[in-house]
Amino acid sequence: MVSTKENQEESAEGALSKKQQKKLAKEAQKSAKRAETVSQESQVKEEDVSAGKYGSFGMIRSSNVNSSELRNRIFTHIKELTVQMAKNKVWIRARLQTSRAKGKQCFMVLRQQQFTIQGLIAVSPNISKSMVKFASNITKESIIDIFGEVSCVQNEIDSCTQKQVELHIEELWEVSAAKPQLPLLVEDAARPLTDGDEGLNIRVNQDTRLDNRILDLRTPANQAIFRLEAGVCKLFRDILTDKGFIEIHTPKMISAASEGGANVFTVSYFKGNAYLAQSPQLYKQMAIAGDLEKVFTVGAVFRAEDSNTHRHLTEFVGLDLEMAFKYHYHEVIQVIGDLFTKMFKGLRDNYQDEIDAVRQQYGMESFKFLDPPLCLEYTTGIAMLREAGVNINDEDDLSTPDEKLLGRLVRAKYDTDFYILDKYPLAVRPFYTMPDPENPKLSNSYDMFMRGEEILSGAQRIHDVELLTERAKHHNIDLEKIRAYIDSFKYGCPPHAGGGIGLERVVMLYLGLDNIRKTSMFPRDPKRLTP
Amino acid sequence: MVSTKENQEESAEGALSKKQQKKLAKEAQKSAKRAETVSQESQVKEEDVSAGKYGSFGMIRSSNVNSSELRNRIFTHIKELTVQMAKNKVWIRARLQTSRAKGKQCFMVLRQQQFTIQGLIAVSPNISKSMVKFASNITKESIIDIFGEVSCVQNEIDSCTQKQVELHIEELWEVSAAKPQLPLLVEDAARPLTDGDEGLNIRVNQDTRLDNRILDLRTPANQAIFRLEAGVCKLFRDILTDKGFIEIHTPKMISAASEGGANVFTVSYFKGNAYLAQSPQLYKQMAIAGDLEKVFTVGAVFRAEDSNTHRHLTEFVGLDLEMAFKYHYHEVIQVIGDLFTKMFKGLRDNYQDEIDAVRQQYGMESFKFLDPPLCLEYTTGIAMLREAGVNINDEDDLSTPDEKLLGRLVRAKYDTDFYILDKYPLAVRPFYTMPDPENPKLSNSYDMFMRGEEILSGAQRIHDVELLTERAKHHNIDLEKIRAYIDSFKYGCPPHAGGGIGLERVVMLYLGLDNIRKTSMFPRDPKRLTP
Repeated sequence: MVSTKENQEESAEGALSKKQQKKLAKEAQKSAKRAETVSQESQVKEEDVSAGKYGSFGMIRSSNVNSSELRNRIFTHIKELTVQMAKNKVWIRARLQTSRAKGKQCFMVLRQQQFTIQGLIAVSPNISKSMVKFASNITKESIIDIFGEVSCVQNEIDSCTQKQVELHIEELWEVSAAKPQLPLLVEDAARPLTDGDEGLNIRVNQDTRLDNRILDLRTPANQAIFRLEAGVCKLFRDILTDKGFIEIHTPKMISAASEGGANVFTVSYFKGNAYLAQSPQLYKQMAIAGDLEKVFTVGAVFRAEDSNTHRHLTEFVGLDLEMAFKYHYHEVIQVIGDLFTKMFKGLRDNYQDEIDAVRQQYGMESFKFLDPPLCLEYTTGIAMLREAGVNINDEDDLSTPDEKLLGRLVRAKYDTDFYILDKYPLAVRPFYTMPDPENPKLSNSYDMFMRGEEILSGAQRIHDVELLTERAKHHNIDLEKIRAYIDSFKYGCPPHAGGGIGLERVVMLYLGLDNIRKTSMFPRDPKRLTP
Repeated sequence: MVSTKENQEESAEGALSKKQQKKLAKEAQKSAKRAETVSQESQVKEEDVSAGKYGSFGMIRSSNVNSSELRNRIFTHIKELTVQMAKNKVWIRARLQTSRAKGKQCFMVLRQQQFTIQGLIAVSPNISKSMVKFASNITKESIIDIFGEVSCVQNEIDSCTQKQVELHIEELWEVSAAKPQLPLLVEDAARPLTDGDEGLNIRVNQDTRLDNRILDLRTPANQAIFRLEAGVCKLFRDILTDKGFIEIHTPKMISAASEGGANVFTVSYFKGNAYLAQSPQLYKQMAIAGDLEKVFTVGAVFRAEDSNTHRHLTEFVGLDLEMAFKYHYHEVIQVIGDLFTKMFKGLRDNYQDEIDAVRQQYGMESFKFLDPPLCLEYTTGIAMLREAGVNINDEDDLSTPDEKLLGRLVRAKYDTDFYILDKYPLAVRPFYTMPDPENPKLSNSYDMFMRGEEILSGAQRIHDVELLTERAKHHNIDLEKIRAYIDSFKYGCPPHAGGGIGLERVVMLYLGLDNIRKTSMFPRDPKRLTP
């Protein structure tokens, strides 16, 4: 695995411009001159030929690292270290993933986010024994600054993402040392599911991961998951902004439970109580009544449900939208459907590296979607389930297993992992859902699904005070508690519809992951409130 | 004010293409044919020449408005109605802001967001008395669909944003009726501060506005404020994304008070308690320890402070960022400074209409900034204050009046409303602030100011377990309660710095408004938890 001198020379043509090479060379000369001034702690013997080329920076906080040389230093990212860079000398700041000392040399795996490269330091006329010993003693996960020469290798390095080059270390400075005892190893946490369980292939279980999230976050799959999650948010907002939507912010502390009294967290609010919003529902609708026309909001929503399932959290990120329409709530379904199509295209086109990194560890089938998306009526879905042997009536709600089965049936028939189910039975929807004027048992409401799990629930909302009051009474809701909500519709309100999307669910299902705790950076459930 | 026939003909050249005109004409014919089928409620006499051209749609919810004619109807926005559109017939959906019946005619002010136009309906061979009466009886703030001809006027209409054209109404349908009694009138709420108080120039006070926020939101200034607020968020995210930052989401329910125990809201969490996060501080830093390198997050933060001032809320939107740096925390100050410069440029260049709309009602001086921004040392600021006669020591914290005075002094000297104050005394900063290694009384921390008020507080954070422990002890903080926080730095962490920005404060100060409740759509303070 060690590169040879010949091999290095073979691929000597650098991809860098002469100017860049000169700059790097100058940088290297400067470093050579720097000597002891930087190090506070390196205890080197007087005869050490490597003196001033290794040690610890101490805690970086200005004065100890305030030379203009350091402040002008140019760093290269591991992902940029390719065969075209061979023979160039570069500075990198990376974590030490693992190291293996062997006689007079020490091999290291250096990591920056999802990228790794092999580093090598060996005793030579220019490298002292003390320096190699210092290198071997650096603890895993410590952060180090390395100056070294990019070198081609003869045999591909399987264990690193940079397979054709390694780094021959000439300087080595410790930036932040990790404690020697780690609660988990990043390489264990990153091990693909497909690897066998035999031998030393240790698994890291979910709770250990979450208890030590800062270590767990360092795996390539997690780096990718949270980059992709940021991408979903960005796409959601950019697509809606293009469609004329305005972002709003809605309060999380509210004076009464927004969706009935159940499953709501209570907050001590000065001398009284407040409640944590279970959705921005009322406030989105108030923004519409306030003439903002099309709004979206991204923020925390809270559910005090004692559900310990793979897809429930007590706090998650809601991607909510609401819009006024002219004559038919299908105008809104069309906007939301198109939002998803554009989002799926954006992920496919711009996040392929992230998708691949997750697939590498967890495996999954690519996400399939149609353009425009498939929209079925609820009764059609029920008929498909009945045909498949499920005993269900047109007005029954779908159980989670029913939803999953229907997802499989739809995929088999229509070849899509995303679809819309329209016209839910009125009885299974919240009181503010607009009834279907043609069939009093149905409603102008819809759910949307990814891989057979619900990721959006939405509807036309009642914008008429009398009907809203009547429906609230029918649901035995205390009118006094929702007075402000009902009053919002007293001063003219356009017909409107919308929906709420669970961000973590979208990412989980898009990536085919099995647990929502994998897509919430710091998940909250009835049993977990830390870290 | 009424347009004359001659005047209309003078500006007959339409800006619409022949095709568009033809389409509009066809639309008009169709509407004429539609007759009674649409109306559910219009009680018209048999002889009514306007029968089928006015009435109420009833509640729009599919079946009553499900004709393909309606679904294909093209609407024009009031802002598009200019002299170039004269003689064109258009559909608009607008609110009735005011109406005034006078003999056989009725004048209306029609509003869509911040845009208004005069509408006119008069008895004629084609318009019945009943129709004009119906028009006069529509309540203020009701939403109506109008079909009419765009007509030029002889004298500019001062009371509307569209001053050179009015709309001659031919069809009129009620979409959503407002109750006759309104708690406030939008025209009162929109009245410029500069107008005198005499006569009928009614003011609407802050609490009445907030109690009836959905009406208050309909003023041009409020439409502009919340559009600009969305712009600040968009700029914040887009600029940081361009700089390689990743968006994260941090939990709001946490197991221990993140910044010491004071001013924190308690939540009943199943059988125990949780607390509402006062900032995403710990979680941003954990993301850095988890190798995400540069992160930002936008979300609710909570402060249980019993402060009833113009600039405190118990819940507000935090724009937070945190980034690893190489050798000096000024790398981060530079990034944040550049973020603000780009944000101010973005607002200036893309939100001038909004800025003007706010100025129209509230008046304010334009916001001044320098590129690159001004950065002063704290001691320099203190010296300026002392020179101005303030009795203050180098290590004292700045009071709010001191900050405001310093803002004025800086503006007078440097001609900027934005500046950075660096190197705060260690004693006035939180325990996790990195001390200055050269002067133990100072710290690597900074605040940023707009119009003399703090809008960002930030610092290099201590990334070393031993120093962090020592500083926590110095502050008498119970180490057990912050164990998870301290442990985050045990496994290697790059030096990092960041800051938190209050969104509502930025918008308030950018626009020169006097109260943060004007820039929070649904503000929360010790006395207000509704709507």
